[in-house]
Amino acid sequence: MLNAETFAAYVNENRERYLDEFASFIAVPSVAAQNRGIHTMADLLEERFKQLGATVRQYPLEGGSPVVYAEMGSGPRTLLIYNHYDVQPEDPLDLWHVPPFQLTRQDGRLYGRGTSDDKGELLARIQAVEAWLATQGELPIKLKWVVEGEEEIGSPHLEEWVVAHAEMLKADGMLWEGGGRDEAGRITMSAGCKGIMYFDVRVRTANKDLHSANAPIVDNPAWRLVWALSTLKNERDEITIDDYQQHVRPLTAEEAALIDALPFEAEAFKANFGLSRFLNGIDAHEARRRLYERPTVTICGLDSGYQGDGTKTVLPAEARAKLDFRLVPDLTPELVHDLLRRHLDKRGFTDVEIIPLGGERPAKSAINSSVQAAAAAACQDTWGQTPVIFPWTAGSGPMYPLSTMLDIPVISAGATWHPDARAHSPNENIIEQDYFDDLLFTAHLIARFSQT
Amino acid sequence: MLNAETFAAYVNENRERYLDEFASFIAVPSVAAQNRGIHTMADLLEERFKQLGATVRQYPLEGGSPVVYAEMGSGPRTLLIYNHYDVQPEDPLDLWHVPPFQLTRQDGRLYGRGTSDDKGELLARIQAVEAWLATQGELPIKLKWVVEGEEEIGSPHLEEWVVAHAEMLKADGMLWEGGGRDEAGRITMSAGCKGIMYFDVRVRTANKDLHSANAPIVDNPAWRLVWALSTLKNERDEITIDDYQQHVRPLTAEEAALIDALPFEAEAFKANFGLSRFLNGIDAHEARRRLYERPTVTICGLDSGYQGDGTKTVLPAEARAKLDFRLVPDLTPELVHDLLRRHLDKRGFTDVEIIPLGGERPAKSAINSSVQAAAAAACQDTWGQTPVIFPWTAGSGPMYPLSTMLDIPVISAGATWHPDARAHSPNENIIEQDYFDDLLFTAHLIARFSQT
Repeated sequence: MLNAETFAAYVNENRERYLDEFASFIAVPSVAAQNRGIHTMADLLEERFKQLGATVRQYPLEGGSPVVYAEMGSGPRTLLIYNHYDVQPEDPLDLWHVPPFQLTRQDGRLYGRGTSDDKGELLARIQAVEAWLATQGELPIKLKWVVEGEEEIGSPHLEEWVVAHAEMLKADGMLWEGGGRDEAGRITMSAGCKGIMYFDVRVRTANKDLHSANAPIVDNPAWRLVWALSTLKNERDEITIDDYQQHVRPLTAEEAALIDALPFEAEAFKANFGLSRFLNGIDAHEARRRLYERPTVTICGLDSGYQGDGTKTVLPAEARAKLDFRLVPDLTPELVHDLLRRHLDKRGFTDVEIIPLGGERPAKSAINSSVQAAAAAACQDTWGQTPVIFPWTAGSGPMYPLSTMLDIPVISAGATWHPDARAHSPNENIIEQDYFDDLLFTAHLIARFSQT
Repeated sequence: MLNAETFAAYVNENRERYLDEFASFIAVPSVAAQNRGIHTMADLLEERFKQLGATVRQYPLEGGSPVVYAEMGSGPRTLLIYNHYDVQPEDPLDLWHVPPFQLTRQDGRLYGRGTSDDKGELLARIQAVEAWLATQGELPIKLKWVVEGEEEIGSPHLEEWVVAHAEMLKADGMLWEGGGRDEAGRITMSAGCKGIMYFDVRVRTANKDLHSANAPIVDNPAWRLVWALSTLKNERDEITIDDYQQHVRPLTAEEAALIDALPFEAEAFKANFGLSRFLNGIDAHEARRRLYERPTVTICGLDSGYQGDGTKTVLPAEARAKLDFRLVPDLTPELVHDLLRRHLDKRGFTDVEIIPLGGERPAKSAINSSVQAAAAAACQDTWGQTPVIFPWTAGSGPMYPLSTMLDIPVISAGATWHPDARAHSPNENIIEQDYFDDLLFTAHLIARFSQT
């Protein structure tokens, strides 16, 4: 068991240093999509693991960000920990009310890109181990830490790296990134995630923009794009790509029951984002079910021609869309790419270029594993409450290679997410108390997992 | 008749000063869409008319750019001249190979925003009158000059001003902006133009961007926009707005014959813009016909969510399109606005906001007027060739109030446009020799019109 008193006292004494260290992590703009600050961040992280006394190594990935891998401690049980040191792009910059790469304390929160997703959790876990070693003695388990730098661009190289290092990565359970509290303050955890496939979609018809008077005789790439996109999903929110639905495995009755029993703060969610309704006016019960059940195709971005104020009578030379597909079993990134290409070709949209930007398979893990039990117990220890456990999340992550391929039960658990965390958006933040709670939760989890 | 020899000698002596003056006009970024440099340009122009000895006055328009109006000369015939001193926005800036607001001489061309559309022609006509007065004596006709500053945003206030000053504007003929040479070097003129209606179209569903994992339950404004737009026009290039086609007056047999007899350098046009084909593969004969016959709806811009490199898994809060409708009789801006709103509402797109940004009615003038005859004769005088006269253009302009409402025959004629002029695009330019030819043409036109 953990001596929580000495642990908490140490954390409290080092609170300002811990926050300074957090600020130094946030200060590095490690945006994988733009290949900024990646190596600076990997080096900083390697150094931090060394301070902890871990054996640490950077694994360079050809054409990608290095994996920082660390090992420490020993014991009969091995816990694999997954985090990532890259972050989403910070734009639109004008909507931030603080500098995105400067940790800002304000009203009990800590603002900055990566505070919630995922540097806060990464560092809280490292600092928790420091505090353990300083107050509890040796670690009672072996820790293996995989920290990648390409999570926000779909972890394009992780699977290959995992396959090459399968033996090294063996573990009895895995602690994933994420976890936090929902709109009602309940601690939530999850044992899987949807997959994802992301595309750039482009149409180009001319070598330069034309005067729009030429519209009767020149193909407009923006129209071509609109028509092509409109065939992918209908207004009833049904994906209409040929042969798509036959790859969507229906929920089992047990899965449906698990989902329907989950708490869902429908009104708080809508209020937070200023939504007048759920999609197409579905009710809260249906919304909760769909969030986990449905595959999606999302237009993440549209870009063509003139976007400024007022009028510009231009016929654009190019139009682009960003498309994000969320995948449920048995959809895979490769399958979606193939179905999309065939679908567009069949309708004459051979001029629509599809550029895959990375994908991840859906992952489902056992939902009664020892690591899940340890996390639930640690939640009781930390917050005195039973966590809500989601069979899988609506979001995605590179769980498939580490969990499904290596057959390691996984739980996503922690305290770094809350409903106004604004991950992937301007003003990303974490609640300061949650940050320090996460240190305590990590320590309890280590103690609990050592006893499984 | 004009003494072309003394006229040309004077122009030649003043060539460098004339170009310096041209540079001072280009240097003012009078972008009406962004309300930049408008008053600086109007003042500069007023001063230039004063130097010419004209009676000149700025008419402020409530909420708009002033009209600069000048009168000079006398005689039995009155010629109204229309130009505009505003220009299109210069973006995308990174595609210019010269500074957009610095007149640059290069390879026999003069580059800069407004060189072709429309400051070059405006100043060439002014300088032609200066040279006339210096070499030929008094003007043999009365000139009335309407120079507006809102042409590039659809002249939202011109009609009201014209109505209020109808008596002052009376004239026997009107010289419009535009005119130039086609791909084969033929001088072209026109006696009318299509109308236009321009809209901002917007959908907003949330108060901030969301993580795209929420796609199964949150309305995506980019999808809503795509679906709404896809109902406006089909892939056969037919406008499918309810009740639209019944307002499109078919060509008369005479009009169709006039259009089919026009020269059309199909291959040069395609090569210039790198087109692999005309729209939907139509042939050159069909393309020429459609250019003048067809109303259009053009997506001039699309804007939503993430547009940078790589991936960002965002569900946008807002999506926007810029739409430009080109109008043939009997379509009007007000009618198009009304039909569009009804069409979208009927299909449930009441969440799609339509913001009108200005419109102009189509205009057709008599095609055998005295001013047209004078322009054709001046073309012979200047270039020794018979011009190609288009009954109307595929582009638009505020001809309707000045020509149709005031019943003044109009001809668009000059030398400032050529096929690589890039009006409305980066690297806008005019051929230097064309600029000086335009001075001579203007003088011949004054001489010829005085004899009608």
